[in-house]
Amino acid sequence: MIRSDRVATALLTGEFAADVTGAATPLSAADAALTRRSVRAYRDEPVTEAEIARLLTLTGRAPSAFNVQPWRFVVVRDVDTKAALREVAYGQKQVTEAPALIVMYADIEDALAHLDEVVHPGLPAEKREATMAVVRNNLGAMPPEARAQWANAQANIALGYLLLIARSEGFDTSPMLGFDATRVKALLDIPSHATVTAMVALGRGAEEGFVSHRHDVARVATFR
Amino acid sequence: MIRSDRVATALLTGEFAADVTGAATPLSAADAALTRRSVRAYRDEPVTEAEIARLLTLTGRAPSAFNVQPWRFVVVRDVDTKAALREVAYGQKQVTEAPALIVMYADIEDALAHLDEVVHPGLPAEKREATMAVVRNNLGAMPPEARAQWANAQANIALGYLLLIARSEGFDTSPMLGFDATRVKALLDIPSHATVTAMVALGRGAEEGFVSHRHDVARVATFR
Repeated sequence: MIRSDRVATALLTGEFAADVTGAATPLSAADAALTRRSVRAYRDEPVTEAEIARLLTLTGRAPSAFNVQPWRFVVVRDVDTKAALREVAYGQKQVTEAPALIVMYADIEDALAHLDEVVHPGLPAEKREATMAVVRNNLGAMPPEARAQWANAQANIALGYLLLIARSEGFDTSPMLGFDATRVKALLDIPSHATVTAMVALGRGAEEGFVSHRHDVARVATFR
Repeated sequence: MIRSDRVATALLTGEFAADVTGAATPLSAADAALTRRSVRAYRDEPVTEAEIARLLTLTGRAPSAFNVQPWRFVVVRDVDTKAALREVAYGQKQVTEAPALIVMYADIEDALAHLDEVVHPGLPAEKREATMAVVRNNLGAMPPEARAQWANAQANIALGYLLLIARSEGFDTSPMLGFDATRVKALLDIPSHATVTAMVALGRGAEEGFVSHRHDVARVATFR
């Protein structure tokens, strides 16, 4: 079922060429999916702000209902802040070992307070107002906790984008949910109403990472 | 910030070559992100079960906490079922116009009932049991509604994968949240405790699709 292209073949045979894992040529989405692993040890090579900004710009192309784009990011490269975050993330070593840590969160209240920024600027004023009213009526009618959950689900679409794009561009990652969210928010001045979607360690791996066992498609999909 | 590679240049200049939009060569994840739009009109060309199975196999490489992989899919190509689904999706035309409709849902109860399937088979028996106990203690302690939301957030990581991989492989998509979830579940025999993550129309587009307006990275990210 998986086409036997170069990377897929390498994956199946266990033979990885150095130029594939540290590719200068971006990988296809398929090859990125096949080769991405959670990596917890990183080489001591910085990731620049420009590189991360590029990844997040591409991540921001993820779709979201009503185009609300509720995802927000705090990118941490400062050593002391990473050390403080590791403490509230149960000591996970990749928090400090990765050159960059991306803390993703969803803030639907910020999105709702600035709907004028998400409605397409090319629309006529009347249409813009009507679109904003639809979003306000839909999300505004939900209890705050429910819309926070809704927004967090949307932010996870962007998380999928980020992980796949980073791998395609030659980076390794480790997404984490194991942390004390209240303390993470306090450390990074993230609003208390926001939901922390994930912490993502980002860098260039110093280990191959663990190959997870996944369901066959027949286990998770039915066709009709 | 965006590298001026072929597709990115085409996007910025508005000039798309036919071989890029209907590419036989898979796109990089970056180019897939830059060129993906929500497409509502599709060419009358079937998508095969093998093509969809390949996409879902790749989608299933998405990471999930505890490796629970709570995502499930019902792939609908049958004309009558698509017509019934369109009725419960507020008449959205892409439900019937797309050759395939992928209904994604999250079923954490199924995952919890079969944890032996998600724990790596290579682990020693004792370690397998301990891993299953950790997952059971963590997720089992959550109220059913909370863990359903948690699982749905996880399934959205896979949704991000699916959209990007489909585009990379030459398909167009339209993810939707506008439907009566209770009726969708009833039509497709999806358990009532499950959460419908999204409906995704899939095919080869007959229109360019709308280019959404997105936040600049400076609006959604801070660096420290």
